[in-house]
Amino acid sequence: MIASPYLLYLGAATDPLAVKTARGVAEWRPDRCLGQIRLPGATVSLNLPDLTIERAAAQGAKTLIIGEANAGGVLSPAAIPVVLAALEAGLDVASGLHQRLGEVPAIREAAQRLGRTLTDVREPPADLIVGKGVPRPGLRLLTVGTDCSVGKMYSSLAIEREMRSRGLAADFRATGQTGILITGDGVPVDAVIADFISGAVERVSPARDDGGWDVIEGQGSLFHPSYAGVTLGLIHGAQPDALVLCHEPGRPHMRGVPGHPVPDLATCLERNLEAARLTNPDVIAVGVALNTSAMGAQAALDLCARVSDQLGLPCQDPVAHGTHLIVDRLVSCFATQTSAASAGR
Amino acid sequence: MIASPYLLYLGAATDPLAVKTARGVAEWRPDRCLGQIRLPGATVSLNLPDLTIERAAAQGAKTLIIGEANAGGVLSPAAIPVVLAALEAGLDVASGLHQRLGEVPAIREAAQRLGRTLTDVREPPADLIVGKGVPRPGLRLLTVGTDCSVGKMYSSLAIEREMRSRGLAADFRATGQTGILITGDGVPVDAVIADFISGAVERVSPARDDGGWDVIEGQGSLFHPSYAGVTLGLIHGAQPDALVLCHEPGRPHMRGVPGHPVPDLATCLERNLEAARLTNPDVIAVGVALNTSAMGAQAALDLCARVSDQLGLPCQDPVAHGTHLIVDRLVSCFATQTSAASAGR
Repeated sequence: MIASPYLLYLGAATDPLAVKTARGVAEWRPDRCLGQIRLPGATVSLNLPDLTIERAAAQGAKTLIIGEANAGGVLSPAAIPVVLAALEAGLDVASGLHQRLGEVPAIREAAQRLGRTLTDVREPPADLIVGKGVPRPGLRLLTVGTDCSVGKMYSSLAIEREMRSRGLAADFRATGQTGILITGDGVPVDAVIADFISGAVERVSPARDDGGWDVIEGQGSLFHPSYAGVTLGLIHGAQPDALVLCHEPGRPHMRGVPGHPVPDLATCLERNLEAARLTNPDVIAVGVALNTSAMGAQAALDLCARVSDQLGLPCQDPVAHGTHLIVDRLVSCFATQTSAASAGR
Repeated sequence: MIASPYLLYLGAATDPLAVKTARGVAEWRPDRCLGQIRLPGATVSLNLPDLTIERAAAQGAKTLIIGEANAGGVLSPAAIPVVLAALEAGLDVASGLHQRLGEVPAIREAAQRLGRTLTDVREPPADLIVGKGVPRPGLRLLTVGTDCSVGKMYSSLAIEREMRSRGLAADFRATGQTGILITGDGVPVDAVIADFISGAVERVSPARDDGGWDVIEGQGSLFHPSYAGVTLGLIHGAQPDALVLCHEPGRPHMRGVPGHPVPDLATCLERNLEAARLTNPDVIAVGVALNTSAMGAQAALDLCARVSDQLGLPCQDPVAHGTHLIVDRLVSCFATQTSAASAGR
């Protein structure tokens, strides 16, 4: 677990995409975000209080989150003194970069000397084991997608929020770096040894018997020639009871691989169900989540209606429309198994 | 590349399965195997000359292969002095164990001091990249299976041998530890970072334009809940033109996972073709390889005939019957593309 509250480091970012990770944390866990720290020249803001390390520490910040990403996934030189100051001030540090924090000798030495925790969320646990496919108790919803980066994490978090707003027990289970930083827990499934993919997901979403749901963040796509292995192992490890298919209309080809067309929704859904049946023969689809951010409002509603008719499933844009129809379907399909959250959740 | 000829270390093995890796090397690359070295108490032999380190070195041995495996995949204490003596005598050392040779300080230091190469075939290359699915020139056959350990490596090697015996250019491409030790090259696909599975296979079997075939060793099964992610990424990276389905009749369930039934051959083959079409829409099946070692000879022939009728494909046990019918089919389906090996191969 990454201790909160967080101080989000944005560096000297001038490109909103460069702080995507920090934005995800600020958007989905505002209660854990005390403030942001920026360097001179930064033009991007997450609309959090600008704090110094000293002020953040005085206000109780527990972890500095490196929320700035760059092409190589390395820690920028300008970030190092900020990290060192945070360690000196009593904060832990967490990062989703490829480069491990401890690879910088000064950071490693300061953390050791001061007894602080460095968390590289891209570093998988060392003690993973192969998945076994043994049926485990619990209710699990998994988001799957036609492609990478079509909104699986956002949809999963939106479904968790909608379920919790109804008093249902639901827990987002993170499988990627941003999701792990948002939730403070999880396993970066794309970074584990190939033999352990399904085992990693069995660990991310262990058996539960409280009638609550694990809402598992999907990764990649069965139709992506780079990453489909990760996706299939994730599906098998998840043993999902319910799938939600995520899609962004209008892509000319699969992300990063021109020449590979995006699959049609019906075929994609059927393949995902087929794959999921290996470890849960009773899996069903409960909805489709579209990212319609590039479309007009009416066109988005029309498209959702058409997809809903075509597939016989509720279809919504989680950002524009919410996920209430999808959760309605989930609850009605699993009415006898689903429990309200216990008091005090 | 692992330098040959090899001296195979069998330890004090009393169980033939404990020297499975060495046996694979001795069976498939006898020309590279100078001899074996055993400790007192060993009852298993590969019918190679018993040599001391000194005699093997004098005869030109280049690499000591650790051919003994145990449950934990660690180097046994008794092997360490043998490894050190081999390094002193001028040999490199290669191992397929989980434990890296260099984790033993005395071995690491001796290798550094003497300038010898330690090869851990379970260690994937550090510079792998994600696969891209870009169509590449060349002809590729991939073995796939209903389950793990049904004979994919053996079948691949047998097909390579049959093709070479006809003067066709064919190269086995190893994706597992025993295959890598046999061929001296390859990538252990189950040990790479999950994001790099298909990229690793694109590297194992790069573009070629000589009209020859890469015969790629498959791993796992799309129907194995532990390893299917590895299998799918391998299929996508391989971009196979031809599949051979491998199967061992009579298994009560998928290996290591009671409760998971073995798929029927027709369903299994169709799913593998479906998966392979993502990166090669023209992929076809050219045969079925059965491991009938547990059956009587007539029952095996009858079963092959039935499977052949059912699937419309040649079906043979590569050990009992060879692979000539499968290679006949391959050659007839790809007659215009397949070339004879160039002179001097």
